[in-house]
Parts: sequence; structure tokens; C-alpha cells
Amino acid sequence: MSTDTNPDADDESTSKCGAPTSDADTEASSSGSKCGGSSSNADDSSGSKCGASSSSSSSSSSKCGASSSSDDDSGSNEKEVGATIEDFDAEPGQLIAVGLGPGHPEGMTERAKDALLEADHIVGYTTYIELIPDEITEQADDIYDTPMCGEVSRTEESIDRALAGNDVAIVGSGDPNVYALAGLALEILESKGATATMVDFEVVPGVPAAQSCAARLGAPLVNDTVSISLSDHLVPMPEIESRLHSVAKENFTITIYNPWSRKRRENFEKACEILLTHRDPDTPVGIVHGAGREDEQVLITDLAELEELGESEIIDMTTTIVVGTEDTYVWDDRMVTPRGYETKYDY
Amino acid sequence: MSTDTNPDADDESTSKCGAPTSDADTEASSSGSKCGGSSSNADDSSGSKCGASSSSSSSSSSKCGASSSSDDDSGSNEKEVGATIEDFDAEPGQLIAVGLGPGHPEGMTERAKDALLEADHIVGYTTYIELIPDEITEQADDIYDTPMCGEVSRTEESIDRALAGNDVAIVGSGDPNVYALAGLALEILESKGATATMVDFEVVPGVPAAQSCAARLGAPLVNDTVSISLSDHLVPMPEIESRLHSVAKENFTITIYNPWSRKRRENFEKACEILLTHRDPDTPVGIVHGAGREDEQVLITDLAELEELGESEIIDMTTTIVVGTEDTYVWDDRMVTPRGYETKYDY
Repeated sequence: MSTDTNPDADDESTSKCGAPTSDADTEASSSGSKCGGSSSNADDSSGSKCGASSSSSSSSSSKCGASSSSDDDSGSNEKEVGATIEDFDAEPGQLIAVGLGPGHPEGMTERAKDALLEADHIVGYTTYIELIPDEITEQADDIYDTPMCGEVSRTEESIDRALAGNDVAIVGSGDPNVYALAGLALEILESKGATATMVDFEVVPGVPAAQSCAARLGAPLVNDTVSISLSDHLVPMPEIESRLHSVAKENFTITIYNPWSRKRRENFEKACEILLTHRDPDTPVGIVHGAGREDEQVLITDLAELEELGESEIIDMTTTIVVGTEDTYVWDDRMVTPRGYETKYDY
Repeated sequence: MSTDTNPDADDESTSKCGAPTSDADTEASSSGSKCGGSSSNADDSSGSKCGASSSSSSSSSSKCGASSSSDDDSGSNEKEVGATIEDFDAEPGQLIAVGLGPGHPEGMTERAKDALLEADHIVGYTTYIELIPDEITEQADDIYDTPMCGEVSRTEESIDRALAGNDVAIVGSGDPNVYALAGLALEILESKGATATMVDFEVVPGVPAAQSCAARLGAPLVNDTVSISLSDHLVPMPEIESRLHSVAKENFTITIYNPWSRKRRENFEKACEILLTHRDPDTPVGIVHGAGREDEQVLITDLAELEELGESEIIDMTTTIVVGTEDTYVWDDRMVTPRGYETKYDY
């Protein structure tokens, strides 16, 4: 299991259906020493510019040394943002947040591929970079990947590179808006005294985990739906519990992201308990581990069985769980949530 | 404005961000006479098979005449499904529900394109078919599009064609699991005595409207989210209102599909009223009309202003509305919903 020490273990870009895994448990044991970003394709003649830094390209440090937080990104310490807009004298390049979709090249959109081909630098967690077809990464002046770093330093690095004049794509699996980096990029831009307009910030959407997993399960999401993450790293558990109660008692299909990690067994157990207080034990539940990947596993079970599966291999941080409504049924190994046509049509 | 008389006006495949429009108002005035499906690329030597029908290809009738409901699909009358599995003696082909994404070819995934290239027949609402690149549609033996029909007859037609031995792709914009046809296809397969396995049923996910629109707005969806449709055609309004109350009082970002139609003004007004009972009038609201299309319009406003915009051009059945949380703010013309990093990092 990969151990990207992403402090936000429920980041779509590290923990979703078909996405590389992120294990929150490794946060505690993560150390800066493992945290060097790797730059490849680097070539002084490549036009790669790092305005705020004189550090040369190296395989273990930022190409835009202005980032101060690239050596340690564990969730517990506060970080200082490094360079501000004053540290850059170049004309800023473009910053694009690109969603790769489920995690196999066929799941990428044409726009995502084009955005990566147009980028001077591609920044991302190593495992996502490896998902990108070689013909695309070979076109980039530089690839900056952080095998063991969190997304805060990676995102700041991508911003520093854009402010230094490079066209930068920061990638993640799924969609940049689903527990992912689009918001963090805007927050860090603001903290640097830059603006989104300055780097012509763009979000290229991708297929989210909920859709990739639902496709494997059949048609569980065709009515009103909700997405909830069980990671309490950035959202307090009481808030997560309150949200679960509110939607479980209504007839939403519930997609659960980041269902389980060794450090968060009790969150999963609590979620199962809440769901069972509002829905029948035989409510269909779909579990998809690593959709579209070699280790894909799909299981359709019910609420009564869900909690004990928390300790099984199929449920980890790369798993997405879809909890059906009171109308959802299982037919021919597919989950079906009727849209309501049967009330209007006779078929 | 297009007037596909889709009985489910909140079908992702006819009413979403960047998707062709469906106007529920036209249901009442729809007539069977406008409802003929159009078949193109038809050629007796093309290998196109319609086991249950002797009708030849025509530009105004099903190629698989077994569908009885292709002439009238208005929401108010009940329909009888035509052919059952007994009516077909061929070895069934494959049926794939393909999500085209936001509605421009660049938004399609590679897998979606491949699935369409592999299909003998492509079935869909005319406006979606027109979204598909010519090099793909030209490869098909037959294109069956219904300019004025609802998705029930179109879906049954696609199933009859698969049961007759053709490899069929039924297309819609967005994702087949988001207010769309994946579920209806499974329901109709069952009603015909067929199975999903029999036609090797597959769902190819696409980028949903929520993600396409969020990308235009910035980063409004990076925390827990809910999707709710305001169409009460298939879901009773009291149920929709109850769901709105339950999620508005929690801190979900709320994506509203099918916000407004002339026949449903009061649903939109009621939704605005409910949102205002739980959230501040200055809560940021993003409105995206026809994302990625020539008529795209993007507006960031607030809850206080939302209701009166219901009567403006920007809000119709092709519009998706994203209602921020209590933490969502507007910066540099982008909506940002903090993920919570600011509680752990200083940037």
C-alpha cells in the first residue's frame, strides 16, 4: 500500500476509487527526510524558470526553493508559506488544476490530456504522475512529484512555479473539486498576495470517485445523492456524525469517501451505527475498492454486514462505499435506485 | 431553446450544465406526431439487426418496431413495454450507457469515445448525438435519435436493438448515474424478462454537471456535498422540501439540478425560501448556464438575490446552481469552500 503522507487523507486526489491510496495512519510516522520532491525532465535549456530561487534542479528539492514547507507536511505542525508575490519578478504563467478521473488513462478527458500537454511543469503525487501516459509527461519541461509529501507543499510548489513564469498543471485523480486541491490552490494563491486571475487559474474537471464506483455497481446514484468523507482530519467528527444523521433519515443515496483507516476505525463503526438507526439492515450497500485498477474489488452487500467488513481488505482509504436508499434494490448483481419512472410508466 | 419533451425534465442527460436543454413545460404540449425517432447511417448490408421487427429503417420510426412506446412518451400516460425477451431469437449484443460529460467533445473520456466507436448503434436525444464527433458517428451502422421523445421510449429502443443482436450505446450528457438513464435501462431490461448480464450491460461514467459547473465557479465543492433536483415530476415536492431542509441546516454545499421551469416556478421559490431559513442571505451562490457551450453564462451572487433571478434568462432547465456553505467565500470572482486546511496550516 502506498504511503503518501497526505495530511488530508480524504483528498479525492489520494484516496479514491481507482486512485492511488493515501493512508492517514502514516501521517504520524512520516518524516521530512522522506519528503523530497523529485524533478525529472529538468534541463537548464528547457525554459523552466524558478524566479524566486537560485537552487538548481535536484532530485530531492523544490525547483522553486521559495516553498518553505516542502520538507515536512505532517498534519500536526503549522506551516508557513514561503515566497509571496513580491519574490517573483517574472510574468506569471498559467496554473491549471487537472482531474485525471478514476486513475487509468482511458478515464481522462480530452481536455485533461490537452491541459497536461500544454503545461511546462506537471506537479503531483508520484503515483498520479505515473498514471499519466508517457507521451504526455515526455512533453513537459519538468515533472515535480512528491512521493511522500502532502498536498499543501505540493500545491504551493505548483503555485511558485506558475508565479515564476511557468505554465503549470497540478494533477490529482478524480475531480479537483471533490475533496481535492482546487480550493487549496486558491487559498494559497491568496496567502501569497497573488490572484487567481494573475495565473489564469483554471479547473479541468474529471470523473469523480462516486461516478466511477457507481458505474461498477450499476445504477445506485440516479436520484438525489450526498457525498460524505469519514476523515476527521480536517472536519470534526461530531459535524460528520450530524451530517450523516441528517441525510440518512432522508432518502438520499450516500457515497462515503475515506471510509476506514487503522487510526479511524471508530469513525467507520460510528457511521455504520448511525446509518442503521435510520435505514433497514437489508439496505443494499455497494463497496468498490480501486475501481478500474488491477486491484479492483467490487462487493454488493447490505448495511447489516457493513461494519464487520471494515476490518477486511476491501475497505481502506482507496475504497468508496455507496449506501442505497429505501428504494434501492439488487438485481442481477447490480444496485438499482429507481428514479421514479415506475410511478408514471408501465414497463 | 430546445424542446425535448423528456418526461423526466431533471434527467442529467437532458438538463445539465453544458447539456442540451429539456423543458418540462413542453410536456403538456408534446404530441406523438412530433415523436418519430430518426435513423441514419442505416443500410441493409450494415449488419444492423432488428430481430423483433420487420419494419425497415425509416426516418420516423423505430428500427426495432417492438417498442410500443416510441410514438408518445408524455409523462402523464402510462406506457406498455413492447417486446419481451421471447420476441428476440438473436444472440443479444452489448448495451453500454455512455456519459458524454459536459457537452463538448473535449469533455468526453477516452473510454466513452472508444465505447461509441465499438457500438453498432448509437441511441440518444438528437442534441447529444450532435455533440458526438462525426468521425465517431460515421463509424456506426445506425444512429437512432429522438428529437422530441422522452428517454423511456429511447431507452427501450436501445434495449430492443441490443436484444436483437446489435452492440448498442445509449448516450447522455453528464454521467449515466446522475438523474440519468443507467437505472431506467436496468428497470426496462428486467421488465422485458432480460438481464443485465445477457447484454453485458456496462456504464461508462462521465463528468457530471456538478463538477463541470463547479470548475467554472472555482472551488465550491471541495467539502461534503449534496445534489438535489427541484423537478417534482418523479419525486413529490414535499419529499424534495424535506431533503432541502435536512441538508441546508447542515454545512453541505448544495448543487441544485433542474432549478426552474415555467411550470415549476413555485418549486424554485420554495427552495429559495427553505435555503434562507437555514443560511445567511449573503451565502455565496454560483449559477452556471450551459457550461462549456456557446451560450455559457456564469454568475456568482448570493442567496438574497437568488429568487428574483429565477425569472431571468440565466436560470432554466440547463442551469446548475451551487449554494455555498457558511464557510464559502468569494475571492477574485471565484467561489471557495475551504476544506479545512487553514485549521492545520498557516498559509
